[in-house]
Amino acid sequence: MAGGADIKAPSPNENGKAEILKGNLEPTAIEVEPLPPVVPENGVEKPSEKSRNIVLGRNVHSTCLTITEPEVNDEVTGDKEAQMAGVLARYRKNLMERTKYHLGYPYNLDFDYGALSQLQHFSINNLGDPFIESNYGVHSRQFEVGVLDWFARLWEIEKDEYWGYITNCGTEGNLHGILVGREVFPDGILYASRESHYSVFKAARMYRMECVKVDTLVSGEIDCSDLRPKLLANKDKPAILNVNIGTTVKGAVDDLDVVIRTLEECGFSHDRFYIHCDGALFGLMMPFVKRAPKVSFKKPIGSVSVSGHKFVGCPMPCGVQITRMEHINVLSSNVEYLASRDATIMGSRNGHAPLFLWYTLNRKGYKGFQKDVQKCLRNAHYLKDRLHEAGISAMLNELSSTVVFERPRDEEFVRRWQLACEGNIAHVVVMPNVTIEKLDFFLNELVEKRSTWYQGNVQPPCIAAEIGKANCVCALHK
Amino acid sequence: MAGGADIKAPSPNENGKAEILKGNLEPTAIEVEPLPPVVPENGVEKPSEKSRNIVLGRNVHSTCLTITEPEVNDEVTGDKEAQMAGVLARYRKNLMERTKYHLGYPYNLDFDYGALSQLQHFSINNLGDPFIESNYGVHSRQFEVGVLDWFARLWEIEKDEYWGYITNCGTEGNLHGILVGREVFPDGILYASRESHYSVFKAARMYRMECVKVDTLVSGEIDCSDLRPKLLANKDKPAILNVNIGTTVKGAVDDLDVVIRTLEECGFSHDRFYIHCDGALFGLMMPFVKRAPKVSFKKPIGSVSVSGHKFVGCPMPCGVQITRMEHINVLSSNVEYLASRDATIMGSRNGHAPLFLWYTLNRKGYKGFQKDVQKCLRNAHYLKDRLHEAGISAMLNELSSTVVFERPRDEEFVRRWQLACEGNIAHVVVMPNVTIEKLDFFLNELVEKRSTWYQGNVQPPCIAAEIGKANCVCALHK
Repeated sequence: MAGGADIKAPSPNENGKAEILKGNLEPTAIEVEPLPPVVPENGVEKPSEKSRNIVLGRNVHSTCLTITEPEVNDEVTGDKEAQMAGVLARYRKNLMERTKYHLGYPYNLDFDYGALSQLQHFSINNLGDPFIESNYGVHSRQFEVGVLDWFARLWEIEKDEYWGYITNCGTEGNLHGILVGREVFPDGILYASRESHYSVFKAARMYRMECVKVDTLVSGEIDCSDLRPKLLANKDKPAILNVNIGTTVKGAVDDLDVVIRTLEECGFSHDRFYIHCDGALFGLMMPFVKRAPKVSFKKPIGSVSVSGHKFVGCPMPCGVQITRMEHINVLSSNVEYLASRDATIMGSRNGHAPLFLWYTLNRKGYKGFQKDVQKCLRNAHYLKDRLHEAGISAMLNELSSTVVFERPRDEEFVRRWQLACEGNIAHVVVMPNVTIEKLDFFLNELVEKRSTWYQGNVQPPCIAAEIGKANCVCALHK
Repeated sequence: MAGGADIKAPSPNENGKAEILKGNLEPTAIEVEPLPPVVPENGVEKPSEKSRNIVLGRNVHSTCLTITEPEVNDEVTGDKEAQMAGVLARYRKNLMERTKYHLGYPYNLDFDYGALSQLQHFSINNLGDPFIESNYGVHSRQFEVGVLDWFARLWEIEKDEYWGYITNCGTEGNLHGILVGREVFPDGILYASRESHYSVFKAARMYRMECVKVDTLVSGEIDCSDLRPKLLANKDKPAILNVNIGTTVKGAVDDLDVVIRTLEECGFSHDRFYIHCDGALFGLMMPFVKRAPKVSFKKPIGSVSVSGHKFVGCPMPCGVQITRMEHINVLSSNVEYLASRDATIMGSRNGHAPLFLWYTLNRKGYKGFQKDVQKCLRNAHYLKDRLHEAGISAMLNELSSTVVFERPRDEEFVRRWQLACEGNIAHVVVMPNVTIEKLDFFLNELVEKRSTWYQGNVQPPCIAAEIGKANCVCALHK
């Protein structure tokens, strides 16, 4: 099984034979939203990262906001109410501050849902299937289906040929897509690149599926020359593929067309494979980028998922999952109590999320998203160029707004800007709310800090292994 | 496998041998939030319910709120904004109406989170572990851990001995609890009563676990005289048990102590079984009911889950999951990137839900919940008594506020009051927002309508099989 050195020095399963992921629930693959290991002040890594394991829990525990029993006369004095209002006001201030300095996670923090605040005091639950009304009347299916139709059009599938629902997050989309794949091919083997979201490997463990990890190129894209022998070694079993429409760390887009061609060339007919496209962030950006491999149900794919709180922006995590009706029909064919169709993972579902999505999609429309995407790509190029100008190693994939660069040496700086880090690299995801001004502010601070980190013999790290020699400007490569 | 007649005429797996749930993702067990099969006007059931299968989807599809592309001059004219405001205003009106008439689902619709509306425009995401801070700064872990501590105290487990998180719904709690059980006992067999929430059987399928269904008493409680031989038939494998702290349809509370005793008497030592308590609704009510079997981590249980949107009340579904730290430590021991600890199912998690729960728990406190529970039980008794007085078959379990009664004949009436139905029975779940006035209004309407449904030779159905002869007042049993 994958060990601690898995990512930095990949040791692929040489013979390409499938292995069942056993033992742990935890991801062994690249983390989506990784927490940086603590880098001590003196810059020396701890010998064993394991020592941090569970201890951190205590820290948050000791600073949490304890719930206290109301006093008998609280209603009269209003003390409790006042104390809570104080806590909330301070918290709001803190959120504003944290929102202002955020750069690392792919969340569009620029939204205004004031028009929807009138709905906050309803308990809206779209329980079960979006298309079949439940008896619980306080739902928002009419909005949910409107949103699903919009995405179905985006990904080119007819209204009567798709099924889908609004999920709680990108992970639920991946869990669902891979589950549908497994139900279609119970003995199928899951193939996913090493840089796939960790929920993909979590799914393999949860579902007790055989899983084959595929190598990646420096860009982060799946390496089809590694996929090929692994497919050929397992030709006796159907293939379930996770294709990344934007990897978490590098924003790399797997080439769907090359993946399909590789499957075909290895002798997998269309009824012997299932492709789930994990479009967490870029699933909503790619359609507006020229030259991007198109995600379309006109191709032999089984499902697509995308997050709603990322590019669209939403107060809480949510996502959209679209699959083919025929797959859901297969799943549903033997249900005894037919009004009970529930092919979702969660059953009870947040009815506010569809309202947020419906509101933004309606206001912005395709054209609005196109504009947002163009702005993000432009600003991301600006950031990468400025980093290079400042002598900082950085990479930006062509179809991406994720700028990967040398990990800042100071953990305080990392936390202040809420950067997601992994090993020697960090990234900024340029979202619609990230302006040139914000990037300049960040860049100036980084350059200034950096001049204090790297003095005398202390050199910036070489990150050629992570982002390629061409992008690295370390002492050796510049 | 369970067939269409599963519930009305249970055909238990005679020899008690475990069977792997194969094939469908769909629940074969009793539905939590069941949709009533369509009862045609003439009262004759369709021969095959299957015909309704996927067709219903089209209906919602045709009435959904389509998203349209903004016109070029929309920003000038304000037409789009106005049109959307109109849609939302109508929707709000509809929600108010539906909320007013709701009786069937266990959701407390009585809450006022006005103080929290100032936080709606932040993208709050508690990604990963609640106790380990992520670099994403816009989170609400300090509130989440406060809520978890409150529940840990309620269920009698020390702060440094538990792990937990706030879930998206009761289903996620069950999925998590059963997954932890499976990871602790990879070859364990899952035992659950037939009246368990369908997510329990969904979990068995997802996780490819062997699953044994156990019969229930008329009350809906697990029948330990059926559990015993099934345990004895599978003594070679560890047991993972789902114990219902309030079943979905009848609100029946499995007797945790008797279940544990049965396990012990069958020779299962404490290191050979794992108990997950599904406390969706009643998990938060039982602690305040005298004579109720106590849910406590002082007993050999592994996890407890409860819904947040049910008894507490919340705009969107959520829940609380508490398990033992030792189990999570087992799961986490082999993680390579230790900052990456994520033992949740979802990864990205709604950061608003903890705020809602924190707010209500703080305001109400234990005493407030006690008062709410007493009110609900009292009102539930009132409803049951009035139903009996009116000559309507009805049942109320001692520890429950779920009143089960004869299914109304008119589907229009069922929908109006949003009753959850199953076969010949329906139920009303008396929640804190359900007043005597509302119950009287409902009762009067039911009695009036009923006088038109049952005239001449048309008799109310006998529901003795579902609720027992003592509670049935049909022509035969009254």
